[in-house]
Amino acid sequence: MAVMNQNYCNLKESYLFSQIAAKVNAFVEKHREKKVIRMGIGDVTLPLAPSVVAAMQKAVAEMGVKDTFKGYGPEQGYAFLRQALVKYYDNQGIGLAADEIFVSDGAKSDCGNITDLFDNVNTILVPDPVYPVYVDTNIMCGRKIVYVDGLPENNFLPMPDYAINADVIYLCSPNNPTGAAYTKEQLQAWVDYALSKDAVILYDAAYEAFVTDPDIPRSIFCVEGAKTCAIELCSLSKTAGFTGTRCGYTVVPHDLKRKAGNGADMSLNKMWLRRQTTKFNGVPYIIQRGAEAVFSTQGQAECQEMLDYYRENARIMMKTLAQKNIRFFGGVYSPYIWLQCPEGMGSWEFFDYLLEKLAIVGTPGAGFGKRGEGYLRLTAFGSREATIEAMSRIEEKL
Amino acid sequence: MAVMNQNYCNLKESYLFSQIAAKVNAFVEKHREKKVIRMGIGDVTLPLAPSVVAAMQKAVAEMGVKDTFKGYGPEQGYAFLRQALVKYYDNQGIGLAADEIFVSDGAKSDCGNITDLFDNVNTILVPDPVYPVYVDTNIMCGRKIVYVDGLPENNFLPMPDYAINADVIYLCSPNNPTGAAYTKEQLQAWVDYALSKDAVILYDAAYEAFVTDPDIPRSIFCVEGAKTCAIELCSLSKTAGFTGTRCGYTVVPHDLKRKAGNGADMSLNKMWLRRQTTKFNGVPYIIQRGAEAVFSTQGQAECQEMLDYYRENARIMMKTLAQKNIRFFGGVYSPYIWLQCPEGMGSWEFFDYLLEKLAIVGTPGAGFGKRGEGYLRLTAFGSREATIEAMSRIEEKL
Repeated sequence: MAVMNQNYCNLKESYLFSQIAAKVNAFVEKHREKKVIRMGIGDVTLPLAPSVVAAMQKAVAEMGVKDTFKGYGPEQGYAFLRQALVKYYDNQGIGLAADEIFVSDGAKSDCGNITDLFDNVNTILVPDPVYPVYVDTNIMCGRKIVYVDGLPENNFLPMPDYAINADVIYLCSPNNPTGAAYTKEQLQAWVDYALSKDAVILYDAAYEAFVTDPDIPRSIFCVEGAKTCAIELCSLSKTAGFTGTRCGYTVVPHDLKRKAGNGADMSLNKMWLRRQTTKFNGVPYIIQRGAEAVFSTQGQAECQEMLDYYRENARIMMKTLAQKNIRFFGGVYSPYIWLQCPEGMGSWEFFDYLLEKLAIVGTPGAGFGKRGEGYLRLTAFGSREATIEAMSRIEEKL
Repeated sequence: MAVMNQNYCNLKESYLFSQIAAKVNAFVEKHREKKVIRMGIGDVTLPLAPSVVAAMQKAVAEMGVKDTFKGYGPEQGYAFLRQALVKYYDNQGIGLAADEIFVSDGAKSDCGNITDLFDNVNTILVPDPVYPVYVDTNIMCGRKIVYVDGLPENNFLPMPDYAINADVIYLCSPNNPTGAAYTKEQLQAWVDYALSKDAVILYDAAYEAFVTDPDIPRSIFCVEGAKTCAIELCSLSKTAGFTGTRCGYTVVPHDLKRKAGNGADMSLNKMWLRRQTTKFNGVPYIIQRGAEAVFSTQGQAECQEMLDYYRENARIMMKTLAQKNIRFFGGVYSPYIWLQCPEGMGSWEFFDYLLEKLAIVGTPGAGFGKRGEGYLRLTAFGSREATIEAMSRIEEKL
């Protein structure tokens, strides 16, 4: 008799963004004349960079000709892309071997699938508020989950609590949903904690490209000791607008090892290679050529232009919120602004207010955890015009 | 202290195709003048169909323009592709709802990830010989695996053994590695067995497009009762040459349910949707437009031309093997020919002989399980010229 994974019964029935979509659709139905401005889901709006488009057109053409056609590629990604990533890290002063880098179809997939490598007895530590995927993927495994609180008092940058014995630690910086970014000293503290607990850090660097201050870390590997206790999950989704194009990369250092029950060394790099060669068949050749273009000099320039566009949106938003005396976090090294709901409103209450009165869609903080209650996330990914209009609605009517 | 998944210690160190690659590379190094003909790995060699190339060029261009740019798509795939698949099944007389179909980045990924839905107490039944992925993905979960034997006596089409209480059953037809294809009556017997044991069948239909006889099933769902006990895993890899382009689809019928511990119904369709919306972010828009073109009338015609090319290769191979009195299976509804090693040779022995003496690469049957010993797999995916040359080498020198 086939027995299903009973842990699925412990998942919340309705996923956050489905709930939001239902409310927004109902509003749109009732008020077809209103222009709804969507600042909820973190999806980009600018098209792919010209270098990327050109590279993919060339690759598509190659796939149509016998002599240049590509069949199965290496599951961990083509060398041309992994070499480009080695160089990308090298430019940050971080030395990696090409075989420490695994090309993926995005951080969300690898974030979910990396849980395969860990036993289900592990205690998982996540920040609160948090990207729901870290929690749900571990509920699916039946693992124990504990939280460290993001609070206004710590600028939504929770620090280690040595009273908690964490085995696997999720960190995301710059953070989704709060936009807060750890300093190097703070990340060192987390690495020291992980080393003392013999824990593994899963470091989500999806938003690293938004960092403009050289003192703010873009990779966990700028910290001493991180290569022995951390895996880094990266994505081209926000860096290069690849939300619908799907490419990322996961770094598993050779120095990251743990003991097996029999005392032998288990190399997490070898485990991930085994996992991916068994349960994955690589990212499309066409997409990898597009990703390679992202890391060319021209591609980097084009992507920074796109990032600057979103950064300017965020500046406009922060200016308006400051004028309205609304307390907020993030927005500086992040496309997300995490604002405190005015007049003590609850997050769904303020979500409803913004939708019904101003036709603006945000994401209620409670959807990200208990510490998200009383907060709301807005994104800077929209068009300049929509961003300006949304801010004038807030300025005039809030 | 992070504890790793100890089941990884139970995996064979060296993956079959890595071992083969090492031997081939060594031979090529020593004999640079020899033309090695590769009939080992099941990778296609014909380029993508013109309709597919055109559709992807158009989609790449769309991604470069703001108004047509696509960000996040539905994780289960765009409606345009799922509707095309509904029609594809409808043409076979099988009625499915669009939300029973989930677009994937290939059967290998879904084959691996579908194991998430099942408890680790389940007993897994696989045929022997078998595609190593079915076994390895379950070793990774620590599950008990039992085998049913493919033998010359049963034409490598093992049938149910009611003495075995299987919970999850892997079937692949037309088969990898043997090329054998079940009749409808035989599949009915498997469905009846699964129903009697309350088991779930994972049906790998990756090679269904090679079937030309209307009496040979292309889908498990042509069998009565299958919708209540089977999931079907499909791929465009061999159907349309997408080995490097990555697209497939998994069918999870609404009628497929099992009881939770508390007696409530667990819908596997809902579970798979939850799994994919949490741990996956969809197939690239560009690739889905390419896949849509595969299922257009023009695309289907172009793909059948490619399939005919490989079918003709297989016919040429079968003719030579028959002339040399080498017993074989498959080749008719499959790009794989499963041949008995001559003179009682072991499979690695014959592999070495073919490589060293004839510069032909096959895949030793022992790599697919105990019952593969004494057999070898050759593929019909090469060029016509290479296929003809390989066969004349066999004709003259074997």
